[in-house]
Amino acid sequence: MIESVFTYSSLKQFAFDVFKKINCTDADAQLATNVLLSADLRGIDSHGLARLSGYVRLWEAKRVNSQPKIKTVHETPSTAVVDGDQGLGLLVAPHAMNIAIAKAKQVGTGWVAVKNSNHFGIAGYHSMMALEHDMIGISMTNASPLVAPTFSIERLLGTNPICVAIPADKQPPFVADFATTTAANGKLEILQRKNKEAPQGWIQTKEGKPSTNPNELKDGGALIPLGSDFEHGSHKGFCLGAWVDIFSAVLSGANYGPWVPPFVSFLAPTADPVGEGIGHFFGAMRVDAFRPASEFKQHMDNWISRFREAKTLEGYDRLIIPGDPEREAESKRLKEGIPLNEKVVKDLQQLAQKLNLAWIN
Amino acid sequence: MIESVFTYSSLKQFAFDVFKKINCTDADAQLATNVLLSADLRGIDSHGLARLSGYVRLWEAKRVNSQPKIKTVHETPSTAVVDGDQGLGLLVAPHAMNIAIAKAKQVGTGWVAVKNSNHFGIAGYHSMMALEHDMIGISMTNASPLVAPTFSIERLLGTNPICVAIPADKQPPFVADFATTTAANGKLEILQRKNKEAPQGWIQTKEGKPSTNPNELKDGGALIPLGSDFEHGSHKGFCLGAWVDIFSAVLSGANYGPWVPPFVSFLAPTADPVGEGIGHFFGAMRVDAFRPASEFKQHMDNWISRFREAKTLEGYDRLIIPGDPEREAESKRLKEGIPLNEKVVKDLQQLAQKLNLAWIN
Repeated sequence: MIESVFTYSSLKQFAFDVFKKINCTDADAQLATNVLLSADLRGIDSHGLARLSGYVRLWEAKRVNSQPKIKTVHETPSTAVVDGDQGLGLLVAPHAMNIAIAKAKQVGTGWVAVKNSNHFGIAGYHSMMALEHDMIGISMTNASPLVAPTFSIERLLGTNPICVAIPADKQPPFVADFATTTAANGKLEILQRKNKEAPQGWIQTKEGKPSTNPNELKDGGALIPLGSDFEHGSHKGFCLGAWVDIFSAVLSGANYGPWVPPFVSFLAPTADPVGEGIGHFFGAMRVDAFRPASEFKQHMDNWISRFREAKTLEGYDRLIIPGDPEREAESKRLKEGIPLNEKVVKDLQQLAQKLNLAWIN
Repeated sequence: MIESVFTYSSLKQFAFDVFKKINCTDADAQLATNVLLSADLRGIDSHGLARLSGYVRLWEAKRVNSQPKIKTVHETPSTAVVDGDQGLGLLVAPHAMNIAIAKAKQVGTGWVAVKNSNHFGIAGYHSMMALEHDMIGISMTNASPLVAPTFSIERLLGTNPICVAIPADKQPPFVADFATTTAANGKLEILQRKNKEAPQGWIQTKEGKPSTNPNELKDGGALIPLGSDFEHGSHKGFCLGAWVDIFSAVLSGANYGPWVPPFVSFLAPTADPVGEGIGHFFGAMRVDAFRPASEFKQHMDNWISRFREAKTLEGYDRLIIPGDPEREAESKRLKEGIPLNEKVVKDLQQLAQKLNLAWIN
């Protein structure tokens, strides 16, 4: 067995039971499950059930509060700062995004910085909450420091993803959801499981030398900002990662840069924090705060169609329109089930045992 | 002579005289000059005086209106759409950024999409207008289609820059100003002037094959989104360029993608426009809409200091903090003068002759 395939509903029930076991309310367990599994559905396997036991370990280590009192600590008509009370990012993030959406309804746009949170799953889930309101959604988060800026050998930034979701009319929405590194950490994890080498330009050794070893991070190596090297613009990838870090944490009062607490429970958070927990940043922009929504969405259809019809490189039959691969994965996996790697299955079985839950049969 | 060095004040007077000759008001000629020359001062030579004769040719072709009636055509408390009336982007952009700043004063943030504009100089100038108000400034613009998305051989996007400017306290501000391609077009122009090859990963031929010929764009080749190839994340660079295009033009009602009118006057704009002129997008966020400005700026100092002190790769003595190289160029050039390439000098001398102006002696 390399992987097993499970129905979405069976995995959903299992994740719900796990969140209930760590004392989430029914509504919270449901929401956390939906957010977590949206990653597995959309083919971003690194951010879904593969992380569930990690959340539980953080709860055991008292670094996740499963009954948080999430509160707004500062606001203006178009902005807010939310204190996540050490809750699951899976819950804190939708809470904050809802505030951004409510503010956009009032004054055109809403912008919410979050402190004292934890890992929030995939950025895409939160941005896409805006779509049904004919709004553009933006989400970003900082993360455990694994990335060395251009010319550095220190790990000072996370893979700090950005997602921008934009509604269209007949076309599916434009959803760009990406780590600001050349390759996301999840891609390295896939190579680790398969014992394969990484391409040049993804990682460096602890001395800053090029490496193709997907386990390099365990030896003090680092991921590289989008661009791979200075000649190919890695300083721009560094700008992007820094932007995400500052909006998520310096605006909100969370930890930033090398102070961001690690996701893994066996690494203790820094002894000299500069803020509280990890940070996120969300935005919602009402399309009709700029022009009539129907007009905007028709032009988005035109934009997307034009790019979809572009002449392709020999050997390729189409461009990737941002959001297409994930939407296709979702529709396939809803029908055919979600494949889980054997190591993930084993990890979930052990989790079931620890929590005295039945594993899916 | 490969280059000649001029004082900032002499170049300023010359540019002012040129803008007056195309019928700008005194105040507009002053502002356009300041914006244009901020590029030469900051070392972004491609976006300064090297473009001046291009603006004049667009005016001659009646594609630039030197006495525009810039107006707000739609607004909410936190947003506006500005119609630039075909004015110089050098003037339309600061006008729009001032509206964003005024809205941020009222409701915390301000967001302005612009249509019917022209090339706006460097993005950095406009974002940095926010700094003195203790605000974060954001600016982006679309541009002539020179970039092929991942897997495509068509030029569908511009180099679509983004700038984010963030105030600090004792440290200089964080100013990230970058094209969303692997290399900006200005870098290619430098190689063209020096007859040097480009690195792999910057450009492709019209068939989409790798090329190192800096003149490849003249033969139908294209620039490549940040990331250089799919394995190194060029689809993320495409996401960034697309994001800028949609915010600048689909939100505002400007032309987008392959419909963006070319900067050069010898190429006619498309016969089937999807909007008006080129588009920009600006944002201003009051720092104290999130937390007290002094607190924020102290943490920005801490952020910047920590990254400044990071351990470097052997052979490098420091990291590039976004904004450092441009600020250093500015302080050097204010003292020592601004070097202009011989081809730029010749072009400006011809412009002087055409407009019956004295060249700098």
